[in-house]
Amino acid sequence: MRFEIIAKDDKTKARTGKLMTKSGPIETPFFMPVATKTAGKHISSDDLEIMQADTIISNSFILFLRPGVEVIKNKGGIAKFMAYHGKVFTDSGGFQMYSPALYLSSEEFGVNFRNPYSGEKIFMTPEENMEIQIGLGSDVAMCLDTMPMIEESKESIKEAVRKTTLWAKRCKKHHDFVQKDIPDSNRQILFGIIQGGIHKDLREESARELLAIDFEGYSIGGLALGEPKKDEYRMIETVKSIIPENKPIYLMGIGHPLELLEAISRGIDMFDSRFPTKSARHGTLFTSSGKVTITNLQYKNDSNPLDLECDCFVCKKYGKAYLRHLLIEEEPVGMRFASYHNLFFLQKLMRDAREAIKAGTFSKLLEKYRKIYTE
Amino acid sequence: MRFEIIAKDDKTKARTGKLMTKSGPIETPFFMPVATKTAGKHISSDDLEIMQADTIISNSFILFLRPGVEVIKNKGGIAKFMAYHGKVFTDSGGFQMYSPALYLSSEEFGVNFRNPYSGEKIFMTPEENMEIQIGLGSDVAMCLDTMPMIEESKESIKEAVRKTTLWAKRCKKHHDFVQKDIPDSNRQILFGIIQGGIHKDLREESARELLAIDFEGYSIGGLALGEPKKDEYRMIETVKSIIPENKPIYLMGIGHPLELLEAISRGIDMFDSRFPTKSARHGTLFTSSGKVTITNLQYKNDSNPLDLECDCFVCKKYGKAYLRHLLIEEEPVGMRFASYHNLFFLQKLMRDAREAIKAGTFSKLLEKYRKIYTE
Repeated sequence: MRFEIIAKDDKTKARTGKLMTKSGPIETPFFMPVATKTAGKHISSDDLEIMQADTIISNSFILFLRPGVEVIKNKGGIAKFMAYHGKVFTDSGGFQMYSPALYLSSEEFGVNFRNPYSGEKIFMTPEENMEIQIGLGSDVAMCLDTMPMIEESKESIKEAVRKTTLWAKRCKKHHDFVQKDIPDSNRQILFGIIQGGIHKDLREESARELLAIDFEGYSIGGLALGEPKKDEYRMIETVKSIIPENKPIYLMGIGHPLELLEAISRGIDMFDSRFPTKSARHGTLFTSSGKVTITNLQYKNDSNPLDLECDCFVCKKYGKAYLRHLLIEEEPVGMRFASYHNLFFLQKLMRDAREAIKAGTFSKLLEKYRKIYTE
Repeated sequence: MRFEIIAKDDKTKARTGKLMTKSGPIETPFFMPVATKTAGKHISSDDLEIMQADTIISNSFILFLRPGVEVIKNKGGIAKFMAYHGKVFTDSGGFQMYSPALYLSSEEFGVNFRNPYSGEKIFMTPEENMEIQIGLGSDVAMCLDTMPMIEESKESIKEAVRKTTLWAKRCKKHHDFVQKDIPDSNRQILFGIIQGGIHKDLREESARELLAIDFEGYSIGGLALGEPKKDEYRMIETVKSIIPENKPIYLMGIGHPLELLEAISRGIDMFDSRFPTKSARHGTLFTSSGKVTITNLQYKNDSNPLDLECDCFVCKKYGKAYLRHLLIEEEPVGMRFASYHNLFFLQKLMRDAREAIKAGTFSKLLEKYRKIYTE
């Protein structure tokens, strides 16, 4: 068993635990900054270390295109390639079915992608995707899933669930086979990805089918695509009613402070999202007293720190008027400061959440965020 | 006298000295990173401090447009606004006559600019420009000059020289008047800008006329615009034949390692340029063994540091294959790493040049760079 629960909250389903990877343990719940191409957007490996972001997520399909698996494998994997101190998740490429520049079509046995650099067609099977993720040396890999659009018909989402299960079986079999001679503690972990849109019965079906394959962890994919929050929370509850408590659950694509705590209170253990850095670049900043739109006129002459309670270097050194000016001017340094702050803030929030669960005060933390953050 | 020569090279015209500003002394020769809008491109005030870049240059006209002089004045000037530890030069806006988005026309009494944000016309006089630079609180200001295009007729460059002198007189008079009650050691220094294209007689005329106005330092403007290097060096020699040795000379727009040393050997004391960061973003990196084009295929699997002799954090931590990948992918982190390294390299080169002048070994340093760098 690679996941151990250390403490549970008694008022909610929140729990804190440890996921044991080949690079060491990760404390849950945690939030992963996105480093699709082995770097955060304006965020370096140094930055990640200073903010104690001990786990990131990269994208195997994107890295397969450039620089290629061999370049990263030669260097000993993603973490070594980018001189990163922490643990690495890789996504499969299923999410790239959302990208018209990359996705061509899905067949029964794999996906047709387009290489955007060469124009050539790439037929990617679940087995090939497993080889790529193992080659990249990540600690936790994702099955190649079939990602339906949120607005698709129920019938077509049902078909995506069917294919996701089919490919999950092939992923698991091949992943086990390639690593059969590797001791358990050195093996890459594989998560299955549960699909089903916002349909309770399809989410149940997907969760049950993947549970039968027996993964070491489960991801909830196909959410955070614009659906109402109540549907998102309902889907979490649906999945949690089927996946046993001893399995870690990863909610993909979520990065809003309150949404993270709401999901944790429903038993989610890990997250990733571009939202904190993307909204930072547009001037939306998280603070201990709520959301700040730094580009607003009210900050023009305000040289106070963005968040007096924040220990990040941006809040320690720079004023709001300066941040506002840099972001209005779209200066890269401003984007870096804003991105750094938002990610630092979420890492601190996750540490606070873990501590609160241990101390029995998680509900208080959640209540505080329900007051200062609207979704 | 605000400039003191400490040591001279005996084989060349190189010298090392101190420019005494209201924020303290600056050792010459030095190179200023460009922080047009109060931030380097991908380079923060923290970065500047770590690389010991103790002087930068901002642009008064650009800052007058946004965030406005008042915002920066309220905070105590550019250095305080951007939480920068060092000294600040400001350029006048003369160079913006090169920008079709900003420049409308030049009249006898000032320049017509366009505000690119509001569309309104701005008539800027030399006096107004002085008020702006004093308001921004920089340590060294530049006169509002008239910047001719390098390819213009000799007649039109002669006219630019005439107007530059006329405006320099008005700048000096108004600058003296505004600061008349401020003790010498707290006063902003004003430099005259010598124009004249690549015409020896016009450069001489401009230098003589500005010398008669008696500035505390002189800039050489209107070079580094694509003219042959031999013309650039000839113009430096022309100016130096007229401006007395005890006056500091600033060559505007130069940032190539060898070109810096060549200019220093001809008696230049200070420099600024976008070249080191701009070329960094495109993959051209300075090293102790010459120029490296990091995007070349030869570095695809090369995980050695970019420059073993460099102490910057990029060379200490990251490999060439990683840098190459980030720059090919146009990742902001890659642009930051490359920009940081190039600026760090030039700061080190300037420290080496100052030491070499003191030690009597400057010619050796110059010879080394003539071998490893072509222009």
